[in-house]
Amino acid sequence: MKIGLLIIGNEILEGKIADANTRQLARFLLSRNLELMTSLTVRDTEASIHQGLERLFSDCEVIITSGGLGPTKDDVTKETIASWMGRKVIFSDEALAVATQNYQRFQRVFAGKEHGYSYLPEGFNALENSTGFAPGLFTIHQGKYLLCGPGVPREFKSLLDDHFDQKILSAFAPPSEVIELFTVRTKRIPEEKIFRETAPTLWGQLEQYGTVSSLPHIMGVDIGVKIKGANTVELERKKSELRKIFESSPLMPNIWNFGTQSLEELIVGVANRKNISYGFAESCTGGLCSHRVTGISGSSQTFLGSVVCYSVAVKAKSLGVKTETLNNYGAVSEEAAKEMAVGVARSLNLDVGVSITGFAGPGGGSPEKPVGTVYVGVHAQGKTQVFHYQFPGDREQLKQRFSQAALYLLLEELEKFAVT
Amino acid sequence: MKIGLLIIGNEILEGKIADANTRQLARFLLSRNLELMTSLTVRDTEASIHQGLERLFSDCEVIITSGGLGPTKDDVTKETIASWMGRKVIFSDEALAVATQNYQRFQRVFAGKEHGYSYLPEGFNALENSTGFAPGLFTIHQGKYLLCGPGVPREFKSLLDDHFDQKILSAFAPPSEVIELFTVRTKRIPEEKIFRETAPTLWGQLEQYGTVSSLPHIMGVDIGVKIKGANTVELERKKSELRKIFESSPLMPNIWNFGTQSLEELIVGVANRKNISYGFAESCTGGLCSHRVTGISGSSQTFLGSVVCYSVAVKAKSLGVKTETLNNYGAVSEEAAKEMAVGVARSLNLDVGVSITGFAGPGGGSPEKPVGTVYVGVHAQGKTQVFHYQFPGDREQLKQRFSQAALYLLLEELEKFAVT
Repeated sequence: MKIGLLIIGNEILEGKIADANTRQLARFLLSRNLELMTSLTVRDTEASIHQGLERLFSDCEVIITSGGLGPTKDDVTKETIASWMGRKVIFSDEALAVATQNYQRFQRVFAGKEHGYSYLPEGFNALENSTGFAPGLFTIHQGKYLLCGPGVPREFKSLLDDHFDQKILSAFAPPSEVIELFTVRTKRIPEEKIFRETAPTLWGQLEQYGTVSSLPHIMGVDIGVKIKGANTVELERKKSELRKIFESSPLMPNIWNFGTQSLEELIVGVANRKNISYGFAESCTGGLCSHRVTGISGSSQTFLGSVVCYSVAVKAKSLGVKTETLNNYGAVSEEAAKEMAVGVARSLNLDVGVSITGFAGPGGGSPEKPVGTVYVGVHAQGKTQVFHYQFPGDREQLKQRFSQAALYLLLEELEKFAVT
Repeated sequence: MKIGLLIIGNEILEGKIADANTRQLARFLLSRNLELMTSLTVRDTEASIHQGLERLFSDCEVIITSGGLGPTKDDVTKETIASWMGRKVIFSDEALAVATQNYQRFQRVFAGKEHGYSYLPEGFNALENSTGFAPGLFTIHQGKYLLCGPGVPREFKSLLDDHFDQKILSAFAPPSEVIELFTVRTKRIPEEKIFRETAPTLWGQLEQYGTVSSLPHIMGVDIGVKIKGANTVELERKKSELRKIFESSPLMPNIWNFGTQSLEELIVGVANRKNISYGFAESCTGGLCSHRVTGISGSSQTFLGSVVCYSVAVKAKSLGVKTETLNNYGAVSEEAAKEMAVGVARSLNLDVGVSITGFAGPGGGSPEKPVGTVYVGVHAQGKTQVFHYQFPGDREQLKQRFSQAALYLLLEELEKFAVT
């Protein structure tokens, strides 16, 4: 099944927002052993949309569109798709009923026949939207399947969840292969070093199992192998063989996860399993470490809290960092990081306290401690260690890198604890 | 100048990451009064890349590619572009020199002639990469301009900054028009209500100035007008007329910004100008409010710190929330929000203390206070107010909405203060 996504949205081509729907659709398809072939973003004009439809209808069997179904005048998807197909937009009892239901779900009254949501291109179906107001659309044209969803990511996602299987998947033969991305996540090693120095034969070994990919991200590289098999048994066998290849490779010490879970998911998992309470004293990360772990459901079981200590006064008063330490060494120092980690563990009664102090820029820093300098303190089981790093990047990137460094250290610390 | 972006990246079509380069390129172009016509994402295969090149070379005068220039075997951009053009990939002294320089910038030694970075398609230029290792590429083919950058957003951006003007912009006549997106940001009103009920004539009025757009986002709608003019004087006149239209519209009470600045930028601006210190007691937002304001450079001037109080014990001990309050009303209650706001202001010595307590789900909540319930407390100038909201969404969306609600209230509170 060749599937293409057409994104209709000036807001993306004008840089107002980034597209989130390609990623959502790709993940959705993969969970059904399907792949996304291409994604094309066009402007909200008739000519651009027609051109996009032309291209995707010539290359794909299933075309999914996102955007332009809303209530304002810049929402032109229905009209332009209809004109491209030589169809009219007409009043539809089905659309009226679906829109009425969409509104009822939010305890709101639908305007009815005078509202644009009651109109559809001839021969189209209206699809319920379980998270918003605008109905989705479906039709078959030139033997190709067309599903149109709203641009708002939450609504686009629910349209897929609610209608893709019934309207599209059921019409095709089930995929003959099972597909999975086998992912291994590494830390603290540059992409180039992995395959040139550390494990020069690794790529070739992996390639015997499927398409290999390497994706660098904040302070790490994800190595992926797209494996296919006739059934899940074959897939499991391939996965266990791949795992052995990695486990016996010189890269093993840099691997922090076999799987796609995020660092914060692993942290919450380990901390909850071992019942270890933790929290942060965040200076330069400004709350990001806490925000990341609290993004995971269940984190409240062991993440107790943090102190975001941006000012010197908060470091001193809330965490008990000594005035002499701040005066003699500065707030960005090994000494301050140490007292912050101890301070937050003591003040919030934590098993593990992690502190982060550094210069995220663009201001601050000094010749000895330039922007990008960070100290991470880890206090646990009566011991405190401080780690020092120097990273490149702008303020946003540095906050991300600083938090990543702190979370790697936290996970390593949690792994040292025995299960209680 | 018709400009198209070709994104080469399985990692995007497999849903591993979301594309950030379309947005970056669009913003970059707009700053030069240019527009991005389309963005096309294709798989890392020769056939897909060839097809993408075919399409963009037929539609555009300037083609920019992103991705596939790295050191691993899945980086095939150079080879496939060369084969599409019928050119060979050859050793290049220029590429060797550029790559050597890229490495030197990071105090690393380049492997030289044996490294793929020393090779280029015939007739291509190698371009310095000021933030990474892989050289960018440039050529003119069939009278069309081709610029190839790395996929890593930071490197893609620096390639544009460093080379676009000299290699491409200078070859074209300067744009005859000045373009700007006039943006007005509204809060607490659904998109549909704006144009159907509150200000039904607004869209028509705005349309006389340029293309109008409406973009809903977390708890608000951005209304945009793309204005063009022969020069900045004409643009300024249009902007001031547009502003008057909005100021006399019934929508005015919902407008929180004329411009594209974010909520956190406005907060940092107002707080710093008036010298008002502030901070948060964050329960369900888990550090997100603090993370958002500390994303803005200069925030350290008045944002002093926060307490992320996930556990009941931290609420009680660090913020002084009374045990009776927690027992009688629960941690998610008007009463707890009130004591949290007062507590954080007192404990961190803040002019304004903002508290957030609610249920972000998926667990927690009760029939009376379901997931999505949030209380925001604002303590300032001796007074404490608590606001209660009920939002839809999953955990991630709710954290975003809760923080947005809190930051709107913080901005409103800061605006009440006199300049000192």
